[in-house]
Amino acid sequence: MKIAVDAMGGDNAPKEIVLGTNRALEEFPDIEIVLFGKEQEIKQYLKASDRVKIVHTDEVILGTDEPVKAVRRKKNSSMVLMAEAVKSGEADACVSAGNTGALMATGLFVVGRIPGISRPALAITLPTVDGKGFLMLDLGANAEAKPENLLQYALMGTIYSEKVRGISRPRVGLLNIGTEEKKGNELTKSTFDLLSHTNLNFTGNVEARDLLQGAADVVVTDGFTGNMVLKTIEGTALSVFSMIKEVMLSSWKTKMGASLMKSELSGLKKKMDYSEYGGAGLLGLKAPVIKAHGSSNATAFYNALRQAREMVKYNITGIVKEEAEKLQNQEA
Amino acid sequence: MKIAVDAMGGDNAPKEIVLGTNRALEEFPDIEIVLFGKEQEIKQYLKASDRVKIVHTDEVILGTDEPVKAVRRKKNSSMVLMAEAVKSGEADACVSAGNTGALMATGLFVVGRIPGISRPALAITLPTVDGKGFLMLDLGANAEAKPENLLQYALMGTIYSEKVRGISRPRVGLLNIGTEEKKGNELTKSTFDLLSHTNLNFTGNVEARDLLQGAADVVVTDGFTGNMVLKTIEGTALSVFSMIKEVMLSSWKTKMGASLMKSELSGLKKKMDYSEYGGAGLLGLKAPVIKAHGSSNATAFYNALRQAREMVKYNITGIVKEEAEKLQNQEA
Repeated sequence: MKIAVDAMGGDNAPKEIVLGTNRALEEFPDIEIVLFGKEQEIKQYLKASDRVKIVHTDEVILGTDEPVKAVRRKKNSSMVLMAEAVKSGEADACVSAGNTGALMATGLFVVGRIPGISRPALAITLPTVDGKGFLMLDLGANAEAKPENLLQYALMGTIYSEKVRGISRPRVGLLNIGTEEKKGNELTKSTFDLLSHTNLNFTGNVEARDLLQGAADVVVTDGFTGNMVLKTIEGTALSVFSMIKEVMLSSWKTKMGASLMKSELSGLKKKMDYSEYGGAGLLGLKAPVIKAHGSSNATAFYNALRQAREMVKYNITGIVKEEAEKLQNQEA
Repeated sequence: MKIAVDAMGGDNAPKEIVLGTNRALEEFPDIEIVLFGKEQEIKQYLKASDRVKIVHTDEVILGTDEPVKAVRRKKNSSMVLMAEAVKSGEADACVSAGNTGALMATGLFVVGRIPGISRPALAITLPTVDGKGFLMLDLGANAEAKPENLLQYALMGTIYSEKVRGISRPRVGLLNIGTEEKKGNELTKSTFDLLSHTNLNFTGNVEARDLLQGAADVVVTDGFTGNMVLKTIEGTALSVFSMIKEVMLSSWKTKMGASLMKSELSGLKKKMDYSEYGGAGLLGLKAPVIKAHGSSNATAFYNALRQAREMVKYNITGIVKEEAEKLQNQEA
């Protein structure tokens, strides 16, 4: 299989992107990689292999570019060329650590939607206290959603969790402000009803408070709420860690105390770091499109490549397409 | 001034409620308190004072009761009688640690809305890393909201923060999934526009990630999103603390390390505990109605009483009424 990579996307591009690529090529003999970007810069870090090639381009979409405009105007950018390689069938999947909005637009306009999936969703595996993690979607591909969209998210999340994460009959939860059936806004009330009448393993409403305790394997919500919750988790965890750090540095006594548990605490930070699970998958497109975190280092980018490989290997796109067709036939 | 108290609401009622009342009576010579509930139980803990009286009732609204039904049927419950005392003008404000939904229904049906405020909002002061805190509303009084509601929340939050929290020209932020003006869903886009044309100190969109860093003094959002974010903050902080505790207990070395910073860490937990700032205020009603946390101890309940006293002292209800009238006249 072949994976197209935007070598110029992200804060640490191209260095960390290429180092992550080197590692993926080493660990997965079944993949080939095409890197899009500035050849001279990429070459500085790239380990020679007959399974990797560079397609040179000088144009880059920046983090500050307005997404849709950038995708329309920068036709020769590393990101758009990467997606074109998927569209033409040359590559089976693509990965970028660049501008999230631009990657979503590229995915939608260049790679295209799976028939039967009205809107793609951004899905991330987030950590839980027990280390198992859960998949949450949509995390911001679409600010508005209808119950039918959430049903499709649930379907895609189930397929992804079964195949890539190896969870049989994943528990699907609807993110809501209470666990009771009648709770929430119009969207969650209608979605609850819709999800109750499917073959999915829908286990009901899930409260934001219980997410990190592993309340469900797949948690569906609209992109506005999902993005809000994701950023709240990030912001709260960071704030708590920074306050703890402050406490630890406040006196010689606490400094000594901290030194006694340094390695354990950094293990904890790693556990909370969701780039360990891979990047954010844009589910519902005709091929896997993975968004690695903007600040990805080599390991995070390697994990995103691993995830792209698994999505191709387990034919996630093909299965979603089949199941979406079945769903449409049921509705018709 | 007189404050009506539901002595039977909350997990630790009536004991902690009464102990909190004792402390408030001691510290604030300008308040009188009426306790509603089971006289014999209350008497066990109540310190005699000529500024406190008990109104006996056996009926109690339980945490498991369906809110609206409970309020309609349990006319003699401690919570409903407490609100009746406010309605009749006998008391100036009321405080309960009982069933949140029931208290919101009681507030709405018994105490009633301020003319010009279409929907009351649940407001809480949440901690920030620098210890200053910020006011967030609505945290779940109404799952759906229109831009006009959010404007009213911003107005009420500003008045509360100026008078009770002593912040001059509080910065009002709109909770959104990005800081740029055009970000978000229909609600946030329209609200952004509306807030930009007021005299409030509107500083733009605020991301959930930056809340605990003190991104604004007043953060407005719809009740669905607000409740979601509040519970995410709670859940994440609890999960991180529980994981740190686990790390600390994992070996003799880490246990020793932990013992060296025990008091500092518990200080940190206290800093994150928002009951230090008081309870949740139901703003927009004809008199202050305060919801103390269900698990309130004496200190938390005392803080809620202090908050009720300040809201009366600074005439929050009167000012909101005046400003809401001005706002209506502007619109007309």
